[in-house]
Amino acid sequence: MTLIMYERIGLEERRPSPFSWRIRYALAHKGVPVEYRTVRFADVETIRALSGQGKVPILVHGDRVIHDSWNIALYLETQFPDHPSLFGGKIGCGLARYINLWSDVTLSPAIRRLISADFIYCLAAEDRAYFRQSREAQFGCSLEEYCADRNRWLGEFEEVIAPLELTLSEQSYVAGASPGYADYLLFSVFQYARLGSPFETLRSETAVRHWRDRLVASFDCLGDRFPAYPTRQDGPDGR
Amino acid sequence: MTLIMYERIGLEERRPSPFSWRIRYALAHKGVPVEYRTVRFADVETIRALSGQGKVPILVHGDRVIHDSWNIALYLETQFPDHPSLFGGKIGCGLARYINLWSDVTLSPAIRRLISADFIYCLAAEDRAYFRQSREAQFGCSLEEYCADRNRWLGEFEEVIAPLELTLSEQSYVAGASPGYADYLLFSVFQYARLGSPFETLRSETAVRHWRDRLVASFDCLGDRFPAYPTRQDGPDGR
Repeated sequence: MTLIMYERIGLEERRPSPFSWRIRYALAHKGVPVEYRTVRFADVETIRALSGQGKVPILVHGDRVIHDSWNIALYLETQFPDHPSLFGGKIGCGLARYINLWSDVTLSPAIRRLISADFIYCLAAEDRAYFRQSREAQFGCSLEEYCADRNRWLGEFEEVIAPLELTLSEQSYVAGASPGYADYLLFSVFQYARLGSPFETLRSETAVRHWRDRLVASFDCLGDRFPAYPTRQDGPDGR
Repeated sequence: MTLIMYERIGLEERRPSPFSWRIRYALAHKGVPVEYRTVRFADVETIRALSGQGKVPILVHGDRVIHDSWNIALYLETQFPDHPSLFGGKIGCGLARYINLWSDVTLSPAIRRLISADFIYCLAAEDRAYFRQSREAQFGCSLEEYCADRNRWLGEFEEVIAPLELTLSEQSYVAGASPGYADYLLFSVFQYARLGSPFETLRSETAVRHWRDRLVASFDCLGDRFPAYPTRQDGPDGR
């Protein structure tokens, strides 16, 4: 019974969603075959019809439909206990949940401040109005205003990731000597920044940068399987 | 061969150090007997003579002298593998290290902004000049200036602990259904705030507050074994 994963697609085969990336890496880690299906970024109707809610990825396994990346990761760990572990047991799972929520509440907003104004251009042209409208409602200002003063937000971002930098200076992965789900979920946010903006958020020669680039290259360069940030024809600066 | 732990002592038997608290809880979790010895807060000479460096706690086990709370936790886990685990395996240990560094770099500074001006009064009178001098050099201003505008720092503190609040709304402990070392190390910082200031940093009815209070009460009310914040005779407001 093949797993089917639905994920959002951007401009010309791009995969901009961090939530898909963490599950792609979790599937690669587990070594479980999966069939990928795509939905357009703004196609919330299809997503709702599939799962009764508006978020992707969605995993379908026989008659089971699982949504929310955390639930999918737990499902994979439970369904494939003899494959390499994502959490390394109950305590590792508890701590990974905390790191997931830290990522949602602290890391992701810090990264959105750096990339949201660029991000819209890695979506298909017909999906951009949806993105602009939904995000501007959430941010309470235009994408461009939200991301103005990048130097200020870059300073805050570097403060946010300081503990990660220290950790990865001591050990190769957040999970220790080898990567675990906590690595994939944090990596997915940096991967979203990497594919969603031409701006490099990570300074070279930092431990976080080396870690991100090692994960991009892992599983046969999984992180480079889809197109990078587009050369903009339509942006204000054409980059 | 009895374990001996050296820890800093404050005014009239108080135990103000977060680093001691995390190891006290780790020892209770492991169920390992230990003999406690105290050094005065400002007595850096004795600490150096014991271990060649200036930090406490220090664990002495036969001819081994271990310092740094993280190293002590690892030592306990390795030396007593048949006792309840602090980390639950390699992945749990890797993730706990990240949480430890997050605590050092993000959580602790946010708490110091709330309590440092009060904290000095839970030290013995003869140790206060050392505390004031060393912390004011570190902060670049007086303790009172550092902690002025508590409402601002309280807002930042609540942002910092937002992921912890979400986690503990979902699961009883950071480590999942039962506490692990990550709980003890985070708890120790809140315990330091609780014993180091008359100001309650945690709003009632929050998940973090309930979690802290459950940990205070655990191991036969270990968190209440020493005196609470003193009634100040000498503070500017006498509280």
